[in-house]
Amino acid sequence: MSPADPLQAPAQVLAANAAFYDAFSQGDQTRMSSLWASHSTVTCAHPGMQILLGREAVLKSWKTILRVAPEVPLRCFAPRVQLLGDTAVVTCYEGAGTGPAHLAATNVFVLEVGEWKMAHHHAGPLQQPLRLEPSGSVLN
Amino acid sequence: MSPADPLQAPAQVLAANAAFYDAFSQGDQTRMSSLWASHSTVTCAHPGMQILLGREAVLKSWKTILRVAPEVPLRCFAPRVQLLGDTAVVTCYEGAGTGPAHLAATNVFVLEVGEWKMAHHHAGPLQQPLRLEPSGSVLN
Repeated sequence: MSPADPLQAPAQVLAANAAFYDAFSQGDQTRMSSLWASHSTVTCAHPGMQILLGREAVLKSWKTILRVAPEVPLRCFAPRVQLLGDTAVVTCYEGAGTGPAHLAATNVFVLEVGEWKMAHHHAGPLQQPLRLEPSGSVLN
Repeated sequence: MSPADPLQAPAQVLAANAAFYDAFSQGDQTRMSSLWASHSTVTCAHPGMQILLGREAVLKSWKTILRVAPEVPLRCFAPRVQLLGDTAVVTCYEGAGTGPAHLAATNVFVLEVGEWKMAHHHAGPLQQPLRLEPSGSVLN
C-alpha cells in the first residue's frame, strides 16, 4: 500500500467526505457501501443511537436509512481535515436542505489500496443550530 | 518515530483512553493537558457544542470544564479500539457516577514519540440512556 501523500491527501479526503454526503443525499446504497472501508473495522454512531460495530451492522443501518432517498440533501458545512499518516479525521457540521446545521460530525477515513475509505462516522445534535456561510465559516 | 506494535497497541490505546476519563473525573488539568497531542492538530466536540479546533481552544475548554473537579466520576463503558496504523479510534459510552451511559463518544489517538496522545474527542447524547454491564456489554 502506498503511503498517503501529505500534499494530495487533504483534497482527496475532502472528496471522499463529499462523496459520503452525496451518496446519502441521493439515497445511493451502492455508493454508500463502496465508500466504507472493507479491510479495516468500521463503526458508526447515528445521532442519538447506539454505536454500530462492523461493516455488516453499519451497512444494514444505511440500507434502512436510505430505503427511500431523502427529500432534501444532507449538506456538509465547514469540513476540516486532520491528516494523521494514512488516517484522516474530518470534523464538520451537517444540515438538511436549506436549514441551518443541526449536527456536529466526525468522519474518519483510512487509506485502503490507494483510496480513502470511511472507517467511522459519528453525528450528534447541536444544542443550537448554526447558520453557516457558503465558505463554511461559522456565523454564530 | 517507532510504528505502533499491533500486538501491544490496543492495550496501550485503552490505557490512554482510561487516562482521559481519570483526568476528567479527578479534575486534573495538568494531566488533561499532557494527554492531548502536541505535534498533530487536535479537535474536540463537547456534547451539543460547536467543534473546537487547535490545542489552545481545546485546552481552554477543558480548563473551564475542570475549574472544579466533577462531583461524580465520568465513567467509560464498552470501549472498542480500531487500530489504523499509528492512529486509533476508540468508540465508547460515557456515564456520570452510577447513572446509565447517556453519551456516545469517539476518541481518536495518535502515536507521538512512542506515546498514544488524544487528537480528537466527540461526545453526543444518546436518545435513550443505556444500562451497561461491568464487562461493557450492552444490556438494552
